[in-house]
Amino acid sequence: MHAFASDSAELTREFGITVGRWTQYESAADLPFGAMWCVIPPGGRSTVDQHPDRELFVVVRGSAEVQVPGGPAKAVSVGEAVLMDCQEPHVLVNTSAEAPLVALSMYWIPEEAAESDVA
Amino acid sequence: MHAFASDSAELTREFGITVGRWTQYESAADLPFGAMWCVIPPGGRSTVDQHPDRELFVVVRGSAEVQVPGGPAKAVSVGEAVLMDCQEPHVLVNTSAEAPLVALSMYWIPEEAAESDVA
Repeated sequence: MHAFASDSAELTREFGITVGRWTQYESAADLPFGAMWCVIPPGGRSTVDQHPDRELFVVVRGSAEVQVPGGPAKAVSVGEAVLMDCQEPHVLVNTSAEAPLVALSMYWIPEEAAESDVA
Repeated sequence: MHAFASDSAELTREFGITVGRWTQYESAADLPFGAMWCVIPPGGRSTVDQHPDRELFVVVRGSAEVQVPGGPAKAVSVGEAVLMDCQEPHVLVNTSAEAPLVALSMYWIPEEAAESDVA
């Protein structure tokens, strides 16, 4: 059993927010996805991110909105998750003026895309 | 963008608790892991579970304890995650007398094990 806590994670500044990449956890080295804690202060927001990975955000503390520039926005509360498609641009926003937002981001290259890269 | 909410998930009774399997979400059909919401009322606990999959629990609401029968127990709060090894028996406990526990469970067969099954 291995435990990972966002509160004690080493955070780096990326995407305009702070993230705690799980590469810092030796026992999480061989997961079938990349993972990072996303920690955003009240009113904060990430820059626009876009990548070939699919990405799953799970909100674990606070309240978020995921915005697709020029497209829909989705409020995401604790107990909810949002899955982004490959190359779908997105911004993660802390919609609270008081509480920090903590979300777990997990991301992976879909098998089809990985295979077509090889071919 | 696809959203999945534990509050509106269809729950089934398994492992002595209620789970909302993500197989109910068409848009989550091709994730590189299985996923389910685990919803446990105050004071509730799962039966002992043991399987060849690795399993990651992320607590999103309430407070949990993961127990390994005859071994360690680990308190897990919101903002924490616990990774179980393959075949490591475990019990998921809601340690609150008042609040429900919601955790997201993700599980997968490690690549090495899958390959040795094939060989």
